[in-house]
Amino acid sequence: MKTLTVELGERAYPIIFCHGLISKESALGAEVLLETAGRSVFIVSNDQVAALYLPRLMALFAGKRVGYHCLPDGEAFKTLSQVETIMGKLISEGFTRDSTVIALGGGVVGDVAGFAAAIFQRGVPVIQIPTTLLSQVDSSVGGKTAVNHPLGKNMVGAFHQPALVAIDVGTLTTLSDREFAAGVAEIVKHAALGDADYFDWLEDHCEQIVARDIDCLNEMIERSCRIKATIVAEDEKEQGRRGLLNLGHTFGHAIETLSGYGVVLHGEAVAIGLLMAAEYSHRAGFISERISARLRSLLAAFGLPLLLPAALTRGDFKTAMARDKKATQSGLRLIVLKALGQAEIIDQVDDDVLDQTLTSWL
Amino acid sequence: MKTLTVELGERAYPIIFCHGLISKESALGAEVLLETAGRSVFIVSNDQVAALYLPRLMALFAGKRVGYHCLPDGEAFKTLSQVETIMGKLISEGFTRDSTVIALGGGVVGDVAGFAAAIFQRGVPVIQIPTTLLSQVDSSVGGKTAVNHPLGKNMVGAFHQPALVAIDVGTLTTLSDREFAAGVAEIVKHAALGDADYFDWLEDHCEQIVARDIDCLNEMIERSCRIKATIVAEDEKEQGRRGLLNLGHTFGHAIETLSGYGVVLHGEAVAIGLLMAAEYSHRAGFISERISARLRSLLAAFGLPLLLPAALTRGDFKTAMARDKKATQSGLRLIVLKALGQAEIIDQVDDDVLDQTLTSWL
Repeated sequence: MKTLTVELGERAYPIIFCHGLISKESALGAEVLLETAGRSVFIVSNDQVAALYLPRLMALFAGKRVGYHCLPDGEAFKTLSQVETIMGKLISEGFTRDSTVIALGGGVVGDVAGFAAAIFQRGVPVIQIPTTLLSQVDSSVGGKTAVNHPLGKNMVGAFHQPALVAIDVGTLTTLSDREFAAGVAEIVKHAALGDADYFDWLEDHCEQIVARDIDCLNEMIERSCRIKATIVAEDEKEQGRRGLLNLGHTFGHAIETLSGYGVVLHGEAVAIGLLMAAEYSHRAGFISERISARLRSLLAAFGLPLLLPAALTRGDFKTAMARDKKATQSGLRLIVLKALGQAEIIDQVDDDVLDQTLTSWL
Repeated sequence: MKTLTVELGERAYPIIFCHGLISKESALGAEVLLETAGRSVFIVSNDQVAALYLPRLMALFAGKRVGYHCLPDGEAFKTLSQVETIMGKLISEGFTRDSTVIALGGGVVGDVAGFAAAIFQRGVPVIQIPTTLLSQVDSSVGGKTAVNHPLGKNMVGAFHQPALVAIDVGTLTTLSDREFAAGVAEIVKHAALGDADYFDWLEDHCEQIVARDIDCLNEMIERSCRIKATIVAEDEKEQGRRGLLNLGHTFGHAIETLSGYGVVLHGEAVAIGLLMAAEYSHRAGFISERISARLRSLLAAFGLPLLLPAALTRGDFKTAMARDKKATQSGLRLIVLKALGQAEIIDQVDDDVLDQTLTSWL
């Protein structure tokens, strides 16, 4: 069983890659999971994932105190109200400060469960068991947790590093093509912002990835986790370099907010956001059109929809972008590409270039 | 202007004692406040406190971006729903990650504002300007923030150290006798758990304190803040010694929960809780009856009501106590007195002694 450590001093934790933890009877990695979880666990999942994997996970925890809450499926339920419901179950079922929350599901489940763990009795440990590609390579690692506010995405949250991330690549076999592609968007982002060789590798292995070749997926997930873990270890609270992971997200979040949560998947919005960020980077003279084109081809090859999901105005777009968490009082902050595999945070956004970029898309 | 530093490494912060910051035109300490606050501040207060001090505080911030939200008065509004309202105002009024939240008020305001700051965009700084005795000597220092859940007090929260605590002792002149006495309960707690000399001093200065002699209050608040700051610096996240500050609180929280929030003041519940903890400690053979009696006399001299506010059963009481945050799966945790000025956390509560203690009160 491969292990990767997120180096965060007293908050360091392992990511274990254990094909079979919940997807097969083999239950690889169960020992580490049980040891980390302690005697009292509360599982947060969603209806779809629970139907597939909850019984096996509950069976692993036989003999412990176990409770659970299933969110309805979708980003629309990433709310403070769901968190309050979880708090109510934890309290009424007698869970105390020495309990562990387990997130079993995709990004929404991980964010809600992680945030619930962060604020229940001022913080209990959380273990992430991500079951989607997006959550395996991105959201489960790094300790960002949040829920949405009707006025903006991820506006309410906390940094709360997990005690363990357990990735069972076997769960990806049950993922819809649409969700799988959405996860690939974050992977392409990792390559684009930090590793040109990885970008080449993705181009070369596109077919095997789409065919969900397990060995190929394993290598890909580990490479992406490694990029993410390195950046998180350097800058846990996103005061500098971690901001690079937001490549494509300022545009992406605006797309999600303006479309209404749940219409576009997060990864789909990020895919379009990546192209818009590349477009801005090209128009600002940072990268050649060829890089933009390679990015577009790769995303398209994974079957990602690359058109805006609705008729949006430039004004709406800019208002939504200004509400982004990365914005400061002094204005918008954007992540641009300086080359393939190299991104940079810029505080001085060129308004003309931004207008041109938006116009070319709207 | 006196200053005390809470020694927490990179999260260290000053407590400034500035008679006049908002209670007089002199605006002592305003410089430190303005420098810490930055360019964009959002004030959380409550209706009563705002009427007295909000205009002067707003005037200090002239030239900055300023927003505010007033909670209705009382513990009943220490809810997640108020926090969500604050989030909505912050977002819709364009506050971003580089804003500072200011808590202007008592314990409820400090807890709600602190928690809102902890989770808005995964955390922005908070400055505590406590205006009640209880919040000046206890809740504003140490970074505990929380809201109540219908099923339990302070069940939802975060550790979020303030960037600054600014104590204007002049605000105590506008406090009702009842609220003032409630604050004294926490002060008596500080003395009882950590400083027998201070307990003697309180007995000696009882009259001046009740008469709100400013010099006397100043000395008292500084001494209490010093005790609290020392304990917090030793154990920020309450994994050990900080638990001592919960002397009287396991009983106290049960009283609050069972009476319904807002019927008893927190300090009033703590006063009774202190006596119940002393009773347990005496019955368990740890302290003499004389210490219990001195504690009772001192609390009574400050005008604290020392009877349970409602007819409660032993079963209700024990259920409420078991839900306390200090409880673990293995059972109740209690803080007992071993001597005047010396407390200890015990994990093995003697059920018979607890029953006798409860019976003597119910």
